[in-house]
Amino acid sequence: MNIGIAGAGAMGCLFAHHLQKGGFPVSLYENDTETVLSIKQGLTVTDGERNEIMYPNIDTTPSILSGCAYIFIFVKSHTTGEVMQNIRNYIEDETVIITLQNGIGNYEIIARVFPDSGILYGTTSMGAFKPQKNSVKPGGKGDTVLGGNNAHALHEIISILKTCGIEAAQTDDPGLAVWTKAVINAGINPIGALLNIPNGEILSSRHSQWLQDTIVGECVAVAKRCGISLDEKEMLARTREVCRKTASNLCSMLQDITNKRKTEIDSINGRFIKYGKKHALDIPVNETVYNLIKARESGF
Amino acid sequence: MNIGIAGAGAMGCLFAHHLQKGGFPVSLYENDTETVLSIKQGLTVTDGERNEIMYPNIDTTPSILSGCAYIFIFVKSHTTGEVMQNIRNYIEDETVIITLQNGIGNYEIIARVFPDSGILYGTTSMGAFKPQKNSVKPGGKGDTVLGGNNAHALHEIISILKTCGIEAAQTDDPGLAVWTKAVINAGINPIGALLNIPNGEILSSRHSQWLQDTIVGECVAVAKRCGISLDEKEMLARTREVCRKTASNLCSMLQDITNKRKTEIDSINGRFIKYGKKHALDIPVNETVYNLIKARESGF
Repeated sequence: MNIGIAGAGAMGCLFAHHLQKGGFPVSLYENDTETVLSIKQGLTVTDGERNEIMYPNIDTTPSILSGCAYIFIFVKSHTTGEVMQNIRNYIEDETVIITLQNGIGNYEIIARVFPDSGILYGTTSMGAFKPQKNSVKPGGKGDTVLGGNNAHALHEIISILKTCGIEAAQTDDPGLAVWTKAVINAGINPIGALLNIPNGEILSSRHSQWLQDTIVGECVAVAKRCGISLDEKEMLARTREVCRKTASNLCSMLQDITNKRKTEIDSINGRFIKYGKKHALDIPVNETVYNLIKARESGF
Repeated sequence: MNIGIAGAGAMGCLFAHHLQKGGFPVSLYENDTETVLSIKQGLTVTDGERNEIMYPNIDTTPSILSGCAYIFIFVKSHTTGEVMQNIRNYIEDETVIITLQNGIGNYEIIARVFPDSGILYGTTSMGAFKPQKNSVKPGGKGDTVLGGNNAHALHEIISILKTCGIEAAQTDDPGLAVWTKAVINAGINPIGALLNIPNGEILSSRHSQWLQDTIVGECVAVAKRCGISLDEKEMLARTREVCRKTASNLCSMLQDITNKRKTEIDSINGRFIKYGKKHALDIPVNETVYNLIKARESGF
């Protein structure tokens, strides 16, 4: 069974590595020519002291995904729409699309061009970092949860992921998982990026802690207006817990800013701002960090 | 007539240069030993292509200010209280203290240990930059306005400043000048510092412009509650005008952050937050940039 992956970033490469090692042929679609040429020379996976080199099937043409039973979307959320347009003609009727991307709205974007029964969605807390275009360093272990209306596909892909050493589990409410992760990301990413600090340091000053608590509080308030039932105290505790568990990690938004790349702020804090406005709820601390990050991006 | 200056930072050195060149003996009090030793070797003033070296009377002991008719306070506003305690025993009854410092609250701090009739206060928009401990580069020309209850001293010092080439003028409402400048600083300094950009670039992105407009709007609202009548539209226009006129300047807060020094955020945005809370008015965008700057400082 062929498995497709759209996007050869850190998470795309990490999943390609696990799946191929687990015995499943992987097809990687990536539209950056340099990255494709580089990975064709061999993708180095560094786990601790050990280096492994793999040679995934990779191309800049979306037709590489033809015939895949499952396609993971691992592009940055602000390009989900564009990528779905690029690949839609190469997806078979029975293909299942899976999104574990950061941010709110990816499922909705995919659902615009694809039937609900063909989509599985959720979150992963696995970490990965790409020191170079053709090398990836897995971060700490993490859970992957997903769900959706196609029970058969859900069971099959979870079994495949487990076979490949990925701790995957089913959830009856993948939307809640996506919102929960988005709140946590909203409360970590812009602070890490603006202060240029690893996740753990957010807990070390009462000022950055005020920022985190207030951002999370605002996002939970928006979620409630949208009918997503999150508990503020629990979300504050979970966000701090993630900071502790990933203390030395530089969040993806900081990596993006450092590398002068567009960040995912629009689908994280930006989405909460948008939903807030829809329900006449201003979330000014989110809006401030959002505009600071966007101003940084505008200088790239 | 001896003139004293407390604080050999950029503005202290700039004023020392102008006053000494105008024929007035200057005594500089500075508590950083390295700075004092360095300036004793000669203070280089670079104006355009021309270098001038001056040898001001400088010391780390406050008694150097004994016998001065006027003492300018040019320390960072968060050390105003400490410096006034250090120098109070060396100030004669007839000495006049002058503050042109940034931020709100300096006059009030000085007035706690000094009679109102002995204080002149106001603002200066002169610019200066210290590339090294013993060198200063004057920035663009700027107005200096001051006022207070001692009409005789006011006329005398304005005349002295003019003689020395400083464009000084009297104002009947120095408090309004101080608040006006603080609003402008609140709308420029934290943005320049957090985005690491010169003042002019704040105008180049709609995101940084949103930040500036919102911060200024919040500060004007606080000023109104405090009985200081500022017009929001006029303040927005004036703040942008300062960004245009000082387009290539790095604001003092950015210089402080770059040099890992404590900034003046407490007496600028922090003061508006404090006065806001006193009048039950939250100003969340100011509070967000305030906490971001304080979190940066906590890492020094």
